[in-house]
Amino acid sequence: MIKVSIVGSTGYAGQELVRLLLRHPEVNLISLGSRTFKNQPMSQVYGNYRKITDLVCENKPIDELADKSDVIFLALPHGIASKQITDKILDKTKIIDLGADFRLENIEEYEKWYNVKHHGKGLIKEAVYGLCELHREQIKKTRLLANPGCYTTCSILSLAPLFKNNLVDVDSIIIDAKSGATGAGRSEMLPNMYCECNESIKAYKIGSHRHTPEIEQELGKLNGQKTTLLFTPHLIPMNRGILAACYAKLTKEVSEEYLRALYRDFYKDEYFVRLTEEVMPETKWVKGTNFCDIGLKIDPRTKRVIVIGAIDNLVKGAAGQAIQNMNLMFNLDEKMGLDYIAGFPG
Amino acid sequence: MIKVSIVGSTGYAGQELVRLLLRHPEVNLISLGSRTFKNQPMSQVYGNYRKITDLVCENKPIDELADKSDVIFLALPHGIASKQITDKILDKTKIIDLGADFRLENIEEYEKWYNVKHHGKGLIKEAVYGLCELHREQIKKTRLLANPGCYTTCSILSLAPLFKNNLVDVDSIIIDAKSGATGAGRSEMLPNMYCECNESIKAYKIGSHRHTPEIEQELGKLNGQKTTLLFTPHLIPMNRGILAACYAKLTKEVSEEYLRALYRDFYKDEYFVRLTEEVMPETKWVKGTNFCDIGLKIDPRTKRVIVIGAIDNLVKGAAGQAIQNMNLMFNLDEKMGLDYIAGFPG
Amino acid sequence: MIKVSIVGSTGYAGQELVRLLLRHPEVNLISLGSRTFKNQPMSQVYGNYRKITDLVCENKPIDELADKSDVIFLALPHGIASKQITDKILDKTKIIDLGADFRLENIEEYEKWYNVKHHGKGLIKEAVYGLCELHREQIKKTRLLANPGCYTTCSILSLAPLFKNNLVDVDSIIIDAKSGATGAGRSEMLPNMYCECNESIKAYKIGSHRHTPEIEQELGKLNGQKTTLLFTPHLIPMNRGILAACYAKLTKEVSEEYLRALYRDFYKDEYFVRLTEEVMPETKWVKGTNFCDIGLKIDPRTKRVIVIGAIDNLVKGAAGQAIQNMNLMFNLDEKMGLDYIAGFPG
Amino acid sequence: MIKVSIVGSTGYAGQELVRLLLRHPEVNLISLGSRTFKNQPMSQVYGNYRKITDLVCENKPIDELADKSDVIFLALPHGIASKQITDKILDKTKIIDLGADFRLENIEEYEKWYNVKHHGKGLIKEAVYGLCELHREQIKKTRLLANPGCYTTCSILSLAPLFKNNLVDVDSIIIDAKSGATGAGRSEMLPNMYCECNESIKAYKIGSHRHTPEIEQELGKLNGQKTTLLFTPHLIPMNRGILAACYAKLTKEVSEEYLRALYRDFYKDEYFVRLTEEVMPETKWVKGTNFCDIGLKIDPRTKRVIVIGAIDNLVKGAAGQAIQNMNLMFNLDEKMGLDYIAGFPG
Repeated sequence: MIKVSIVGSTGYAGQELVRLLLRHPEVNLISLGSRTFKNQPMSQVYGNYRKITDLVCENKPIDELADKSDVIFLALPHGIASKQITDKILDKTKIIDLGADFRLENIEEYEKWYNVKHHGKGLIKEAVYGLCELHREQIKKTRLLANPGCYTTCSILSLAPLFKNNLVDVDSIIIDAKSGATGAGRSEMLPNMYCECNESIKAYKIGSHRHTPEIEQELGKLNGQKTTLLFTPHLIPMNRGILAACYAKLTKEVSEEYLRALYRDFYKDEYFVRLTEEVMPETKWVKGTNFCDIGLKIDPRTKRVIVIGAIDNLVKGAAGQAIQNMNLMFNLDEKMGLDYIAGFPG
Repeated sequence: MIKVSIVGSTGYAGQELVRLLLRHPEVNLISLGSRTFKNQPMSQVYGNYRKITDLVCENKPIDELADKSDVIFLALPHGIASKQITDKILDKTKIIDLGADFRLENIEEYEKWYNVKHHGKGLIKEAVYGLCELHREQIKKTRLLANPGCYTTCSILSLAPLFKNNLVDVDSIIIDAKSGATGAGRSEMLPNMYCECNESIKAYKIGSHRHTPEIEQELGKLNGQKTTLLFTPHLIPMNRGILAACYAKLTKEVSEEYLRALYRDFYKDEYFVRLTEEVMPETKWVKGTNFCDIGLKIDPRTKRVIVIGAIDNLVKGAAGQAIQNMNLMFNLDEKMGLDYIAGFPG
Repeated sequence: MIKVSIVGSTGYAGQELVRLLLRHPEVNLISLGSRTFKNQPMSQVYGNYRKITDLVCENKPIDELADKSDVIFLALPHGIASKQITDKILDKTKIIDLGADFRLENIEEYEKWYNVKHHGKGLIKEAVYGLCELHREQIKKTRLLANPGCYTTCSILSLAPLFKNNLVDVDSIIIDAKSGATGAGRSEMLPNMYCECNESIKAYKIGSHRHTPEIEQELGKLNGQKTTLLFTPHLIPMNRGILAACYAKLTKEVSEEYLRALYRDFYKDEYFVRLTEEVMPETKWVKGTNFCDIGLKIDPRTKRVIVIGAIDNLVKGAAGQAIQNMNLMFNLDEKMGLDYIAGFPG
Repeated sequence: MIKVSIVGSTGYAGQELVRLLLRHPEVNLISLGSRTFKNQPMSQVYGNYRKITDLVCENKPIDELADKSDVIFLALPHGIASKQITDKILDKTKIIDLGADFRLENIEEYEKWYNVKHHGKGLIKEAVYGLCELHREQIKKTRLLANPGCYTTCSILSLAPLFKNNLVDVDSIIIDAKSGATGAGRSEMLPNMYCECNESIKAYKIGSHRHTPEIEQELGKLNGQKTTLLFTPHLIPMNRGILAACYAKLTKEVSEEYLRALYRDFYKDEYFVRLTEEVMPETKWVKGTNFCDIGLKIDPRTKRVIVIGAIDNLVKGAAGQAIQNMNLMFNLDEKMGLDYIAGFPG
């Protein structure tokens, strides 16, 4: 059994980790970290854990957790992990960081987009970007895993086959993404209140969302070119789910069926990617699961391809993918503890 | 492995059976019945089954299914099961009926409330009312199981300890219940449309809902008295969940703690009943699970007890309880395939 | 033109006052009070006021507002108005208090339920309880108006004709009410967040909600008896609306049609009360309006009457009724500025 | 008073016409047409009309309505109006068609996109495209008004100043639009049901939505060039509202402030267009109103401008704009009967 600690277990992503890890057959959850809810039973913080677990939230230093854990999941605001993770800690335990600190390989980019100093520069080289479908072999070997962002996962998986095959004009990419309200986290702020979100939609951080450089970095690796793209996130009135509409100019004339075959081939061994073929993805079909559903269409009038990707932002976009990475890092079946069917209506 | 068929697998309750049974370690799902979607792959009817199952909906007669199934789940409108289930079928297979036809022991009551003739009178005596927490031993032995209604399950479990202990005035019972929209089923009717349900609440079938006699029958058995109660269901804008507020006059002065102790004792061996003690239940904590959460309060001003029960109407109120019954009927661990944690936010 | 000031104009009820008063043909809105948003244009606090008003929030003492206002609306947490309103202020201006401080005639009751000292005892006698349909003549003459609570308005209007006609057992009353999330106000607290409220329902403050004594006081006046009732509020996932299910034992056997005739007679001159006859009220039909829709049913099995009332909690339950009261206090047509049709789907 | 008839008054757009026209000071509503609800009082079809109107739905031929109406609003599925409207009818009454039949000037385009024969070819030349902000003078003089589509209105108004000023590469336009569920109409189809729409988002008719040629036609007029654009609509879980994200490559380097000034100038006399400047539009601020809120941003990284437009699809996107057109056609104040403030939270 793998001994697992979570730091930041009472945010939405952290809580989802708890839910999934408690049912993972090879995991022994030994510490739920929370500053805010220290000393409170998890079942009081979240009523779904009644009768499920007796674990009590605690606030132990990472160093101490490292001594007794095989792996520590960090679900913290950016800027904290880079301060606390050291080589010494990594000698004792593996780290899976759900935050942003180790995702960008270029520290300048990180400091520009996040507007903070990076304190873990020495470790960035070592960190592996944990998009399982793209970096499986490196993930298996790393001790420092940077788990991708939610929008990022959905966007990259949607566009990867096109980039890999050099089929799109790299300057033509627009990603218009829509997220449920869990994406905003569990902080008690006015814009996150029920009556402020319900029955409305808005775009936010147009062109300036921090997931942008992450998408560019990963897509760029696939075709060896620098891509500059436009990313627009929206907030919509539902709990979970991301739908990304990815637009690109094709560099040569191909048929929809040609592209579908190419996607089928690219993802032929990937259990968690489902190609929806004629039908377009809807977030309800992936809710609560680790699947990424992808559909595409060519618009012959404008010679553009439109790829629609759908994930659950808390599962494939956070906790689920983190566990998929853990499975890889511990040589387990990649699907272990993750093979859920979306409850419908969810 | 238990060979299982479902008749009516594409309604909301039927679909939930499919979801849960596909992950049940002792079940081999051999037939998904559907008249409407005959010959369509389940994964086309419901996108959550993509890559999960290749089963194709079929429309086989129950008789034929009986030959090859260890158990058949029926998720049909009332009036059909009582026509089709015969002694001969029951000789070949077990039946778990999610409909209403075999729930009421008194045929006159059935015909009065449902306004149809009952065609399976000979079998009613044999049928066992499948509220696991109350009739476990009989359930284990039956071959014809009448799975309780959703409102019913929530209401009976909420009030059972009080009735068992003769603590309430049987003529004082009022149950004010609220259900998510899946309770109305998947029929394409105007009142079920998004824009008609959303952002509104209504009461319906006040004093005339068909779950009423079922609740009265079961509560009456517990204290040996005839109970006539008032049941008011409401439709609220959410997908799943039932919250029942049950009001009763106490027959003697007792403390809240006294009642809580009594509930703890009554449900001490029941995994799927969770007593929330000081906190009141909320449907979000049981969503997608087979739990029934129960909390209570005494109002000293009016000498009433108020018991609040919460279930997921499609799980403990339908498919989950049906599987709990199957587990009992096949001598399996009662929790098998049902021990989910509510996803939050769900 | 009536010169109107609002103290507390940026909460949900205050904001609704602004919306309605800006379109009231006889009102000149001269001051929008807000501590939190002082010096900010109202159109920045709430985007619906773009191009509608240039008013800027200010934080003036009531005393100063009294000098220049014909009427001041107070939309404040309880305990503040009773401290600030004095006889001297009332010599200069009329006060319409949307808070609770002057609603209860019995100060001990107030201090028990609200758990604070009352600082305006001298004025309580003078205050008029502003349920227009019941106290119209006194309202016309008062200078200190206590605007009823939201649950209160809906509950009292639903039951008034029965009490007036001595038709119900006063100890049998149970009110099970459901409110949209605006009822919880605009404070940034965890339970009010989108993902915490959405897709769930809960009961709260069972038997202890502060609207209880207000309902008892007003119903008691109608039949001259002391009533002790049980009130249970629920929070449901929608923005606006209250639905109250009111249960009572009848003291004599009467028909539904008899009761309907009695309600028709009781409310024959009341524009804002709509009797829905055979159909039961739904909150969507009153959303955004000052109407209270009422329907009733007799359950012959339990000899109870069930009255269902529906209002918009921010309009008839707060701002709308406050303006209806203002209209009466200034001898205007009671409907002025209030005769909206519910937008559907709203 | 203008005598007004509505044909198709019980769909969502038709119903919104009824609501707004009943409060229009210069309108006398004389006929509510409905095939489905013929002979039913409007207040039974939609409960918000209780006590508001006694009008009963009827199913009169347009010819007969023309004799007694000053104007007839048609809110019908496409293909009907073009069959029924004749020169003879237009001699007797004005027509405001909320459907698509007279919107496209090029009949071939119409027949291609709508896949039906057009039966009113003779009248197309006469019809005026009723986007008030662009064609005010022609609208004033016409007797056949083609009211724009909902997505169309929002998209064109968002992009018009850029086209007028030749600032965008006409082949770079992508419009990613999101609509509430009223956009799908009131037909009782599975995808429109509460549990199928709630808590999910999907794209549909990618690159093939029928509003596309309408947007191209109108934008093309503004700069005299043929534009081919990509339009992707989405369905999101809310009742009302459209948010359109419009993406375009700029043809020259300009600042955000430059563009804002240009928009301010273009819309300086337009009451119903609100420029939100730094803030981005949200649909909640226009709900129930005739406003179109527009905000914009330049992404210097990709040299694109992003314009966000928000309308209420049933008001500015249908009934409200139709009445704005009527006001123009009858020489009334353009705002008459339309100057509502969005209720919040709505």
